[in-house]
Formats: sequence, C-alpha cells, structure tokens
Amino acid sequence: MTTLRRDRLVAALQDAGMDAAALVPGANLRYLTGLDMHMNERVSIAFVTATGEAAMVLPKLEAPRAAQQASIPLRFYPWTDDEGPADALRRCLAELGLESGQIGVEYTAMRVLELRAIEAAAPSVRAGDATPIFARLRMVKDADELAAMREAVRIVEEALREAIGQIRVGMTERELADIWERAMAARGAAPSFTTIIASGPNSANPHHSNSDRAFQPGDLIVMDGGALYQGYASDITRTIAVGEPSPELRKIYDIVKLANEVGRKATRPGTSGAEIDRTTREVIEDNGYGAQFVHRTGHGLGLEIHEPPYIVAGSAEPLPVGATFSIEPGVYLPGVGGVRIEDDVVITETGMESLTTFERSLIVV
Amino acid sequence: MTTLRRDRLVAALQDAGMDAAALVPGANLRYLTGLDMHMNERVSIAFVTATGEAAMVLPKLEAPRAAQQASIPLRFYPWTDDEGPADALRRCLAELGLESGQIGVEYTAMRVLELRAIEAAAPSVRAGDATPIFARLRMVKDADELAAMREAVRIVEEALREAIGQIRVGMTERELADIWERAMAARGAAPSFTTIIASGPNSANPHHSNSDRAFQPGDLIVMDGGALYQGYASDITRTIAVGEPSPELRKIYDIVKLANEVGRKATRPGTSGAEIDRTTREVIEDNGYGAQFVHRTGHGLGLEIHEPPYIVAGSAEPLPVGATFSIEPGVYLPGVGGVRIEDDVVITETGMESLTTFERSLIVV
Repeated sequence: MTTLRRDRLVAALQDAGMDAAALVPGANLRYLTGLDMHMNERVSIAFVTATGEAAMVLPKLEAPRAAQQASIPLRFYPWTDDEGPADALRRCLAELGLESGQIGVEYTAMRVLELRAIEAAAPSVRAGDATPIFARLRMVKDADELAAMREAVRIVEEALREAIGQIRVGMTERELADIWERAMAARGAAPSFTTIIASGPNSANPHHSNSDRAFQPGDLIVMDGGALYQGYASDITRTIAVGEPSPELRKIYDIVKLANEVGRKATRPGTSGAEIDRTTREVIEDNGYGAQFVHRTGHGLGLEIHEPPYIVAGSAEPLPVGATFSIEPGVYLPGVGGVRIEDDVVITETGMESLTTFERSLIVV
Repeated sequence: MTTLRRDRLVAALQDAGMDAAALVPGANLRYLTGLDMHMNERVSIAFVTATGEAAMVLPKLEAPRAAQQASIPLRFYPWTDDEGPADALRRCLAELGLESGQIGVEYTAMRVLELRAIEAAAPSVRAGDATPIFARLRMVKDADELAAMREAVRIVEEALREAIGQIRVGMTERELADIWERAMAARGAAPSFTTIIASGPNSANPHHSNSDRAFQPGDLIVMDGGALYQGYASDITRTIAVGEPSPELRKIYDIVKLANEVGRKATRPGTSGAEIDRTTREVIEDNGYGAQFVHRTGHGLGLEIHEPPYIVAGSAEPLPVGATFSIEPGVYLPGVGGVRIEDDVVITETGMESLTTFERSLIVV
C-alpha cells in the first residue's frame, strides 16, 4: 500500500518539475514511509526523489525503530550527537544526486532549522513549496483510512453520550472535559486535540480554554472534542442546554442547525470548499447573524486534525470523492453565548456521507 | 515579571545587533508574552523590537483569548480566513519600522511557512538565528519556574511509586504506562511527554514504543516518564527488575548508577554540558561499556521537555546558576536489556540540587 503512495508522490514530483520531496517528522512522513516520529531539537529529514529513491538523515538512536517501522525501502544516514547532522546530510544529498535542482519542502511542517541545514549542505538547491502536492495525495482517503476514521467517530460519539448524561448544574468545564476524555480513554482512544468545553458566556468564544466555571441554569455548553484511532482523527461539536435557554439562544441554535444541514446537503463530488462555506454562511447571513459567524465552515481531517481541504472562501478546487472534512457553522454572541454544530463528512460518488451521526436537535439537560 | 523578560530580550537583541525577534506559538512566545498558543495551519507571529515595542499578527478568532492572556503590552494585527495573513503582516512590519534589517527567528520552532511570509512581506529583511538568544534567556529559571518544576517532580515521583507497586509478571508495557499516567492524572497533571515502558529485550532500545509485551521473570523495565505542572516539565527514569536479574544486567545497573552519581557530583556553576557528559561517559567507558552508551548524558528541561543546555560533547558554554537539566546515562545490550537512571538537577551557588530524589538502588519486584 505504501509503495503505492510513494509512486503517486513520484508522479506528482515529475508533474511539478521537482527533483525530490523533503519530509520531516509528522503526518506526511508517516503517510509516505510508515515512520511514526515526532519533531524534536534534532534534525531528521527524509528525501524521496523523482526517480523513486528514498533516504533519510536521522539521529543514530532513532535509526533502529525507524528501520522497524519503514514501509518502503529507505536508506539511512544516521548521525550522532558528537558528529551533528551536517556531514550525514551532505552525503545523503550527494548520493541521491540532489546537489542542485528543486526540492519540495513542507511549508507547514519543516522548520527554519531543517531548511537552513539543507541550504548549507547543498547551496545550489532551491526549496520549493510541496505543501499542495502532499495535500492532494492525502486528501483522498482509502478504505483503511476511512475505517480508522469511522472507529474514531464511534468512540468519540459513544463517549459524548456518556459525558452528556453526567452534566449537572455546578459541574465545571474542566470536570466535563475530563469525563469526556476518560470515556474516550476507556474505549482505547486518546483525544485528537485539546477538548473544548465552553459554557455560558464562554461559549461565545470559539477558541475558549476550559476553566473552572460551574454550569448554571440557562447555559449553553459548546462541547468540541475528537478521538484518535490508529493515527486518524474524529472531531465533533454539539451544543447542549442546561435547562431551557433564552429565546435568542434557542433562535441561534435553530439557525446554526439549519446552516449545518444545508452545508451537508450542498456537499458532493466537484463542489468546492468555497461553495460549501458560502452555502452555510448565507443561511446565517439571511437570518441576520452573518457578523457573528466569525470562522470558516470547516477543515479537512485525517492523520491531522486540521489539513486540506479547507471549507472557506477562496478554496476553489473541486473536491474529490474520498475527501473528508468537518462542517461546523457557529454563531457567537459576545457576553451572552454561542452555538456550534460540527459533523465529519466524506464525499461519496453520489453526494456525501456524514461519519458523525449524533443527534443534532437541541439536547436540554 | 514578564516585562522583565521582555527587557532582557531587548538587551540581548541590542547586543546581537538584531532589530527584532520574531516568535511563533510555543515555549518562547509563552515565556515572553504569556500567550499559550499552539501551532496550526494559520500564521501567527509576534515581533519584539530592539526598541521594546511588541506586536502580533494572528488569526482574528484567536485575538480575544490572546488579548486576555497577554502579560506585556502587545498591539494586534488580526487577519481573517477571507483576507489571509499577508496584508496584516505587511502593515505590522511597516508600523514597527521592520521593512529592512535583521530579524532573529527561532530556528527550532518557526516553520518555512512563517519565514516565507516574512520574506514576502519585507523582502529586504534578513532572518538570523535567535535560537541561542532565547536559549540563554530561558536557561536560568526564576523562583516561580523552579516551584512549578518541583511540583512536576513531586507528582511524577509519587505516581512512579504507585506504579512500581503494581508491577506483576504478565502485566504489559502499555498497561504499566497507563497506570503511571493515570496516577499522574489523579494528581492533576498530564504527562510531559509520551511515557516509555521498555521491558526485557525492549529495554535495550532507548527510544522504544510501548508494546503489548508481558513482563517476565528476569526482565529489566526501563520506566521513563514526566509530569507537566503549570506548563513546566519533570522527566525521570528508573530501571526496575522483575525478580533477580542476570549477573550481567546487575553489573550494568551498578555501572549506570555510578555514572549517574558521578555526573551529579560533577555538576556545579561554571562547568559545561560537555564536561558533565565526559565525566559520566568515562565511568561507563572505564567499565568496558562505552560503545553501549549510545546517547548524550542529558538535556535541559523547563517549559519544554528538551531545551538547552544539552549535556553532550561540544556543549562548551559554562552553565549558570539556575540552569535545569537531566542527567541520564544508560547502557544498552541489544537483544538482552538496558539500564537508564535519570535525574533532574538545578545548578545552585554551591553545586547542584537534584530535584528528583527517588530511590536509585535497584528495586526488585
């Protein structure tokens, strides 16, 4: 399977006129080589050339595990703390014939550290942006990837149901986040990102940090969380009411729910992220809350919790079958409260399927 | 307190002949501005000029929380997904007078994405390496930072004691990691990095990934974990025996224990990371296992789990009072087993203090 991914990368490099791609620890490296590595202060860079060769410069102490994990043939150039990475990198680039030409790098992952190291090892090399190449490769999920995402959705939804069942007046945001995360852990999954529990006036901040605020009657609680299964993420938001909310909060709930539904219905092969964003945004604008929908409609997800495609103005590329992303309109009234309803969808031959199926009507506890 | 940190940065920029520093989400930004932000696909960059002005380009939806958290005066240049960051960045740099000159960037944190964005917004600007400046600023911990680290140590050591008490033949590496992490969580702390439990032959791999291998009589178990308290990390390793180990494993245990002790005793103001590394390494070499000590002696820790100073050959700078780092010699016999004993120390006026005080003699369970 993974040599197939490498071969698709090779074809894309040839199309783009690039001589190689450079990959640092993270999602693209994992996708293409099977290596599950984390960035640290030491330089690790894998290169895949347009002729299909692959090699990697990495700290010597990480080499045994990398050799075990590698799912494609990969020549290693280990370096020790005594030596530093410069010489290994120079030899690697020379032996791959990459002393000049264009190397595509990951703009959203590679650090200045690795860029400068490549520039020092091969001063004639130009570093181009390979981010769009990796984005296109990873956007279309295969059957194994979708199976992992379905499991990540199943876990987070079961855990969400359990957590909602425990909401009480007086419970704090941090306590509810902990309950939800423990319910995921009990099902064998870690959170795919920092769980957000935003209650009462805090729910008007889409990027709230959980606090010790205790829930009060009349609160809305925005619950935004996800699970990670075999490296793949789910991401769901539901907004729960503690007792009957005010008429205005009930009104924005209904508007956001409609925008979410219209957004999902507009999702089909060939549509663009910009079109889906416009569709959900129009619903909210037409109902008078356009200025209070302060973020994009959604983001791709898979090995990363935020990855292409982005569901936002300007995202004009037609979306392919197999693309997975969130649809998460929201309305936020500063000082009062906010609503967000988020689903994870996959584009199918005939339209879309929502991987998340959790109840979207307002749950009042 | 934090304006003091800014003022120290300003002085360091002036010394280095730099016109400003650029900071991305992460430890340096948190240290200097109080902002607890995470890298994502959107561009966020703060600038502190050599004249003491500070401003930040960031996604509009992150601005309210940033304004709440900022501990120094900070002018914001928010951008929306519709607009993109280019214009906000251009205005920010122009209004700070940074259209040319040298901006110090974080080589180990800033991505090519942010570097290229700065280069596009101000083509005459040169990006220099400010990593050493930030390293020197953060290396010396103040009283509040040390208090947080002491608490992180207290939590991980209590949790370690609880976890060791539960080790049984037949328990798996993943189960023991889970027990240790839950014991930290019960004390209000998350792990500061992925807990390593490496048993039997796996203990010979210093960067092992936890598996479902079950403990057997005669195993050594390398337990390497840490807690995070108020953003600050602890990091401890102890090696536990399941029943009496073989004479060779007992022998390398005693050698590593001696190397750890000698390394701690060599730690005092003005010594260097290289000297401490040489001291521990000599003990292991003199006992015939030099080739099996395959990593550096230690790393700094604080807001990050790996940060300067590094305790390794080549690290020649004299260490100041208040520097905090690990001392963690190890010996690894492939296919057989390994030993690592790690403490967190702080340099004091008269020598050093080991923050970790957990029993270093071999515990046999």
